[in-house]
Amino acid sequence: MEEFIYGGDYNPDQWLDEPQVLEDDIRMMKKAHINEVSLGIFSWALLEPEEGRFEFDWLADIIHKLYENGIYTILATPSGARPRWLAKKYPEVLRTYEDGKKAKFGGRHNHCLTSPAYREKVRIIDAKLAECFKDDPAVIGWHISNEFSGECYCSHCQDEFRKFLKRKFGSIEKLNHEWWTTFWSHTYTSFDEIEPPSSIGENETNGLIIDWRRFATYACTDFIKNEIEAIRSAGAKQPVTTNMMYEFGGYDYAEFAKVIDTMSWDSYPEWGIAESDGKAALEHGLYHDMMRSFKDKPFLLMESCPSGTNWQSVSRLKRPGLLKLAGIHAVSHGADSVQYFQIRQGRGSSEKFHGAVIDHTGRDDTRVFKEVTETGALLKEIAEIKGAVGDAKVAIINDTQNKWALENSQGPRNCNEGYYETVHKIYEALKINAVDVDVIEESHSFDGYKILIAPMLYSLHDGAEKRIREFVENGGILISTYLCGVVNENDLCYMGDIPYDMTDVLGVRTEEIDALCDGMKNSLLPVEGASMRLQETDCEKMCELISLKGAECLMTYGSDFYKGSPALTVNQFGKGKAYYIASEPDREFYVGFLGRIIKEAGVVKLMESLPEECDIASRVKGGKRYVFIENFGREDKEVKLPEVADMLYGDTSSKLPATDAKIYSIKA
Amino acid sequence: MEEFIYGGDYNPDQWLDEPQVLEDDIRMMKKAHINEVSLGIFSWALLEPEEGRFEFDWLADIIHKLYENGIYTILATPSGARPRWLAKKYPEVLRTYEDGKKAKFGGRHNHCLTSPAYREKVRIIDAKLAECFKDDPAVIGWHISNEFSGECYCSHCQDEFRKFLKRKFGSIEKLNHEWWTTFWSHTYTSFDEIEPPSSIGENETNGLIIDWRRFATYACTDFIKNEIEAIRSAGAKQPVTTNMMYEFGGYDYAEFAKVIDTMSWDSYPEWGIAESDGKAALEHGLYHDMMRSFKDKPFLLMESCPSGTNWQSVSRLKRPGLLKLAGIHAVSHGADSVQYFQIRQGRGSSEKFHGAVIDHTGRDDTRVFKEVTETGALLKEIAEIKGAVGDAKVAIINDTQNKWALENSQGPRNCNEGYYETVHKIYEALKINAVDVDVIEESHSFDGYKILIAPMLYSLHDGAEKRIREFVENGGILISTYLCGVVNENDLCYMGDIPYDMTDVLGVRTEEIDALCDGMKNSLLPVEGASMRLQETDCEKMCELISLKGAECLMTYGSDFYKGSPALTVNQFGKGKAYYIASEPDREFYVGFLGRIIKEAGVVKLMESLPEECDIASRVKGGKRYVFIENFGREDKEVKLPEVADMLYGDTSSKLPATDAKIYSIKA
Amino acid sequence: MEEFIYGGDYNPDQWLDEPQVLEDDIRMMKKAHINEVSLGIFSWALLEPEEGRFEFDWLADIIHKLYENGIYTILATPSGARPRWLAKKYPEVLRTYEDGKKAKFGGRHNHCLTSPAYREKVRIIDAKLAECFKDDPAVIGWHISNEFSGECYCSHCQDEFRKFLKRKFGSIEKLNHEWWTTFWSHTYTSFDEIEPPSSIGENETNGLIIDWRRFATYACTDFIKNEIEAIRSAGAKQPVTTNMMYEFGGYDYAEFAKVIDTMSWDSYPEWGIAESDGKAALEHGLYHDMMRSFKDKPFLLMESCPSGTNWQSVSRLKRPGLLKLAGIHAVSHGADSVQYFQIRQGRGSSEKFHGAVIDHTGRDDTRVFKEVTETGALLKEIAEIKGAVGDAKVAIINDTQNKWALENSQGPRNCNEGYYETVHKIYEALKINAVDVDVIEESHSFDGYKILIAPMLYSLHDGAEKRIREFVENGGILISTYLCGVVNENDLCYMGDIPYDMTDVLGVRTEEIDALCDGMKNSLLPVEGASMRLQETDCEKMCELISLKGAECLMTYGSDFYKGSPALTVNQFGKGKAYYIASEPDREFYVGFLGRIIKEAGVVKLMESLPEECDIASRVKGGKRYVFIENFGREDKEVKLPEVADMLYGDTSSKLPATDAKIYSIKA
Repeated sequence: MEEFIYGGDYNPDQWLDEPQVLEDDIRMMKKAHINEVSLGIFSWALLEPEEGRFEFDWLADIIHKLYENGIYTILATPSGARPRWLAKKYPEVLRTYEDGKKAKFGGRHNHCLTSPAYREKVRIIDAKLAECFKDDPAVIGWHISNEFSGECYCSHCQDEFRKFLKRKFGSIEKLNHEWWTTFWSHTYTSFDEIEPPSSIGENETNGLIIDWRRFATYACTDFIKNEIEAIRSAGAKQPVTTNMMYEFGGYDYAEFAKVIDTMSWDSYPEWGIAESDGKAALEHGLYHDMMRSFKDKPFLLMESCPSGTNWQSVSRLKRPGLLKLAGIHAVSHGADSVQYFQIRQGRGSSEKFHGAVIDHTGRDDTRVFKEVTETGALLKEIAEIKGAVGDAKVAIINDTQNKWALENSQGPRNCNEGYYETVHKIYEALKINAVDVDVIEESHSFDGYKILIAPMLYSLHDGAEKRIREFVENGGILISTYLCGVVNENDLCYMGDIPYDMTDVLGVRTEEIDALCDGMKNSLLPVEGASMRLQETDCEKMCELISLKGAECLMTYGSDFYKGSPALTVNQFGKGKAYYIASEPDREFYVGFLGRIIKEAGVVKLMESLPEECDIASRVKGGKRYVFIENFGREDKEVKLPEVADMLYGDTSSKLPATDAKIYSIKA
Repeated sequence: MEEFIYGGDYNPDQWLDEPQVLEDDIRMMKKAHINEVSLGIFSWALLEPEEGRFEFDWLADIIHKLYENGIYTILATPSGARPRWLAKKYPEVLRTYEDGKKAKFGGRHNHCLTSPAYREKVRIIDAKLAECFKDDPAVIGWHISNEFSGECYCSHCQDEFRKFLKRKFGSIEKLNHEWWTTFWSHTYTSFDEIEPPSSIGENETNGLIIDWRRFATYACTDFIKNEIEAIRSAGAKQPVTTNMMYEFGGYDYAEFAKVIDTMSWDSYPEWGIAESDGKAALEHGLYHDMMRSFKDKPFLLMESCPSGTNWQSVSRLKRPGLLKLAGIHAVSHGADSVQYFQIRQGRGSSEKFHGAVIDHTGRDDTRVFKEVTETGALLKEIAEIKGAVGDAKVAIINDTQNKWALENSQGPRNCNEGYYETVHKIYEALKINAVDVDVIEESHSFDGYKILIAPMLYSLHDGAEKRIREFVENGGILISTYLCGVVNENDLCYMGDIPYDMTDVLGVRTEEIDALCDGMKNSLLPVEGASMRLQETDCEKMCELISLKGAECLMTYGSDFYKGSPALTVNQFGKGKAYYIASEPDREFYVGFLGRIIKEAGVVKLMESLPEECDIASRVKGGKRYVFIENFGREDKEVKLPEVADMLYGDTSSKLPATDAKIYSIKA
Repeated sequence: MEEFIYGGDYNPDQWLDEPQVLEDDIRMMKKAHINEVSLGIFSWALLEPEEGRFEFDWLADIIHKLYENGIYTILATPSGARPRWLAKKYPEVLRTYEDGKKAKFGGRHNHCLTSPAYREKVRIIDAKLAECFKDDPAVIGWHISNEFSGECYCSHCQDEFRKFLKRKFGSIEKLNHEWWTTFWSHTYTSFDEIEPPSSIGENETNGLIIDWRRFATYACTDFIKNEIEAIRSAGAKQPVTTNMMYEFGGYDYAEFAKVIDTMSWDSYPEWGIAESDGKAALEHGLYHDMMRSFKDKPFLLMESCPSGTNWQSVSRLKRPGLLKLAGIHAVSHGADSVQYFQIRQGRGSSEKFHGAVIDHTGRDDTRVFKEVTETGALLKEIAEIKGAVGDAKVAIINDTQNKWALENSQGPRNCNEGYYETVHKIYEALKINAVDVDVIEESHSFDGYKILIAPMLYSLHDGAEKRIREFVENGGILISTYLCGVVNENDLCYMGDIPYDMTDVLGVRTEEIDALCDGMKNSLLPVEGASMRLQETDCEKMCELISLKGAECLMTYGSDFYKGSPALTVNQFGKGKAYYIASEPDREFYVGFLGRIIKEAGVVKLMESLPEECDIASRVKGGKRYVFIENFGREDKEVKLPEVADMLYGDTSSKLPATDAKIYSIKA
């Protein structure tokens, strides 16, 4: 499609006995400039009402009626939820919980991901669907299952876990060493003895816990591959995706990225519930950037809510303009679509109050419908941006495996390691400095960046320490914070000095780590006459005691028994520089500090400084840089536009109205 | 009995090896004017020490000794707790939990309510007891089991649930439609596939959840019928009751009301723990009114605490006078008894510290005993009031099925829909206006009322919308609030405009519903020149956006993007009027607003305005209206008595002492 | 050993493949004056890698290498955690939870304590170890298992529980009476019917709950005896201990005290996390005193943390000096050792961040290592104190069985009976008065004390009421508080007047007990002209209403309906006096009140008054009293030393520096 994809999840299967509903919906979708629907996401019970009896005619009919009206279909495989007959005949497809309890039928996204029976049944129906629609011009993509999550602890999954570990470690001795099982006499004598983590069994061996998370990722990725193979074997060539949910699924999406064609995700900011809408926007801006960075390509915003959700603590309405603004926001960070859950609101069950393009009244004069229509019109107008990519010079590492290792470690801060908060705080400080940011995993290439920020890089894997060394040697600027280089990928502590293999790069050595209770503060004070004069700031959460091994001390602690000892350092290494921040300063400090680094590194800012409650991002294509500025606040803001800006949306004045945006292009 | 019943639960079976205790107790009961005891509530282990061996002599002895001393017995069936031998021989009688776990022996009120074995064993002992005491003048009533609660998920209960659903829906297609099971491919292909809601299975299908609650009510009501039939078949004719616990049991007591002769309940206000004792009194006043309204007849206060309970967070003593005042309070709302749990305090196990008429010291000079005696004397003095009924002209709907539907709905406010708080708030505002109030279910007749208040009438059943229409058409005043007429009885959303079938009655249509976070506020502002000038107020929780379809707008929202849009309306319909309140104003607003409506409707108030911390209510009999005013506060209050009041308790002065009451009669 | 034991847990078994580590460790231990290690605590998997194959050579080698370097071994039996092969072959050794769920392999301290298979396997390896090391001069003691805790609910444990109850009660009728099972028809007809408390069964019969706790203590003590017998049968004569964890294990350690030679425990104050370090010190001072009082002998501080733990909410570093001060503190209360967990920090699994003498860097120039070394040097200097004992004239009862009875009782205060808080508050008030205190169980002898404080002596056992009577009759001063003498040891309420059998001793009778909500206050006001003039104070939690039966009223309540009624009384009885405090006054009141009593009783104070954030204690030996004063505050304090004090540590000035101590001897 040349245009942005505009549409969303549609469940006409809930209305098959009321044909008028489909007619009404098509009429209204056209009115709203909708050009796509995601179909069949939970349709298995209708597509295969009993084992081996496939009924696709109703689906084909709908797809073709839509297509005749200019609406394409992204077709889902139905594996997100089972028909009851399947669970009844093959009970193995239902999950087993960590305590050995067996699930009953109910819910969704809760099948055993390694079950041969489930994989086979899914393979068959996927292949049948692919045979049917592989050459259908109405079908432009495949939506594999839906919002994968969780894990199963059945005996089959346990067997697969043991095989996975055997492949990883080779010998049980190696596993015992890496997981340090001599501790508490937990030594394994064979792989057969391994059980997954369990609240009523082994639950403090962090190596086991992290590898179980890796296995869950593997099992799910393998399940996705099984589905893709079924589709491809049947001859279908349309691109495949699966819709993700950042900070929810418990998987390492970097593995998904390797097997699907396009990243896509479901974004549900807590509009009206979060501290502020600007805060909610920056939070999801980070996730958008992460989705783009996985494959360094545009992604799809597969789901978003046209109004209030039904599952957040309260169903807040989106105030006028916010629907369009949220769509622009996704596009600004690299989305090539704006899709909603859902087109028509269901009448019953758990999601009956979830916002929809068409609600229970069936009217096309609702406030929501009118805003959906306006947004559709805008996306048509800016269609030239589709396909534009990012070219950030600043990257921040937000690594899933590192998060797992930190969260499950006992100590140094069991009340909250705060990895999430730190990454988001630094990201916000970067956006206030109005630069584009890539949000990457440790395994992502560091090439091409001028600034690499690695907060709390506790667990090293994929040779991160070596690649960081090269990055700095070759002229990059590294910013690293406390808890750096403490353990290997199996949560095994490095012996000797830390940050492991980076004491020379950073010019410091960690002596001790003091964890502070919630609410406790220390401060960072600038060193007189240092090469860089920084602003005093409070700090909290952790205070590392470090000794200088060549670095220059820029700031020291302001209190406690380590008052006056180094807290922020810089070290020249090769052609580059490495900063080390031994504690957790506040956001304002990061805004100033990163502003200095950005300037020093020669990274071009999109504007001098971003007003509060706003976001800014750009995409490049065909020699043009498309810049998006959004105001999520309740008041108008002043922004300084470049002198030669080609406006695609909004006027050239310096006024950025509340709940509105400007889009313009400049030379890339 | 001509007099009020005065007594309570008595467990002499705990003291059979100390005969002196019974002698002491009888002496003291007589001293305290006690004329009734509830016996045998947990005596099964003694009545049938092994299967088929019945030992009733000890019970008959006690009953007759009491009778000789002027103390009647309400005899309990012993089904509230099982002997161990029964659970051991028939393990099916023990409950199965929602996750399939089987209960062990212990606790009480936890048998399988559909178990054939349990029903049969209960039938046998009930019949034996009835044979023994059917003609005994000492036994004046039957107390079926005790405080029914909860549900069982065993295979037998599941079978009965499926039969219940088959009777209700007729076909599985109808059930699938009403529960909207196409959602997530949860379609049932036969009734056999249905399982109860479970935390490890189906738990988001609201139709299933509500029908499971209805089934639990059905199973319990049927259990009660089984007990009543056993008693009646044996020839016993005394009236039957079962003691309920409002806001606790999870059943729809309207169904119980259909099969028992007299409503009775156990009232345990949080005296000294709640925000204030006045607040606690109004809360339980509402429950008293509800109990009376079920059958529009006097009820029994089957249990209340003579001192502190042992199970509330702290065991607060009742301050002097409160015991008597609480008794008067129950009578004022329609109780024909004042009964305590318990006459003599047990020595051990979980309730050993529960307040009792006779405590561990065995003394009759305790503060509590003296107050019990005073209260007994007062009840004798006002015996003429027994049997008097209510004649409220104002009714508020507090519907159990509606509560289930609201509470289990996902959205629009998952942190708390607040049905309970809203109903109680409006009730308090009515009482401050000093009118009698009926508290009714949706299925209750609306005839005879001048004002009908239907807050949050989310789920319509029993033709409520049609009967409301008739009520207004015929001249009634309806006050309805947000979330009105949204779903049918199965939580299936109405299509088209809502409030369903009432947009003409109310003259408004709901557009959208904004749910506010806890602590967020909007406001209602009066419309200049409106026909009714109301006081500005804050509002919270939900703000419905409504459009006028004939109604007059009396108030508008004060902020947010819907500032200025209608928030409180009135519509003339037929001979009546219908008000719609689109948000949740505060209590003070309701006091003023309802005061205006009461005046407009010509409802006679019992006094001009009730002081804080007080309650007022009346009962009518033989051409007289008996009015009760109680002061639950710690300070004396001023009240204006009618000029011609015949005092039954308290003097004619305008001073209502702290923790005291006045009772008088006027012409009805 | 002549010197204090100085060392701790050491796990060289984690480093067998890196022999250099042991060499390094020995070198560093010597440097730090370490003379002991606790070995083998979790080594079973290495000591018996498969059933019946014992490999002790590596252990003997290590023990001897250490010994050659002047480091003794306290050798652990390895029963604290099982090898996997044992759990696989004998699944009965894994625990069953209270709901019948069976544990999987994992964790530690979670075996079935009655399992014949486990006892037998433990017996065999213990005997083998004892055979090997019984005559080894390097091994100076046995460390039985590790930190026993919890209980198992398997069928075997249930059988043993039934036998335990049969031995205790003799007949089921007696049990039914004591547990008051007629309540709710819970009568047992035979011991076979008894099941342990369960969340899905019997869980409100307090007699059952308390006896289950007693059984858990019995089962664990019997397990310990089994281990000791194995060691002794093999001929080993070294003293045995087991390391306890006060306020954690759920056992009555008084039973342990009867079978082991030396008390020892693991002390982990919340330094830097608690309200203040002084508060944390007094909390653990009480536990130290308790450990000493069990056997009226010195005890071992078996574990303490050289730096931050990994399992508290945050891992706070110990500030300079605190490590040494905490060691002195333990010694001051009667410890004959200072031991750490752990000598060398493990690389992985759950405790990898737990503080250690030697951390992951392996350096001996760390701050921690240097402080460990200084502390070792000090302990050598004060070696003469080893073996000194306590001779407190003041005792406070802190009874485990009483705590169980109070905590599990339903009412009079379910939100928190506050036994712990009350005991600690009174203890703090005593320490501020600078006296030595014994902290004893009800069963401990009261002989030799001048003052006995018995707060909340709810449950009487071991003839406490008779021994209290004798204590007062013979001239002792008793201080008793509310909730005194309410139930017998089975939580069965006494009939008639309470405090049971002590109304004449105390000269008061309890009438009613009012429990206050959290945050509610009353006050105690001094009686004009009373024989003892006390300071007005707030009080909270509970207010007992008492009547005088001979006592003099010293204070009355200041508010509520019992304003003016007695609240604090004194009664002359025999040669002694008995005070009764009917409510919960604040700490300041106790400081003043107890100061008066201490003076009256002629108890000699160690100084006039202890500054805030400090602790003081003494030990006596060979005619000398060794006095320790510690300052846990962040500021220097003024203290008045005796004129003739022989300083062992610190100077003779009146300045007690922050985070430091003084130790001196005076004539005993």
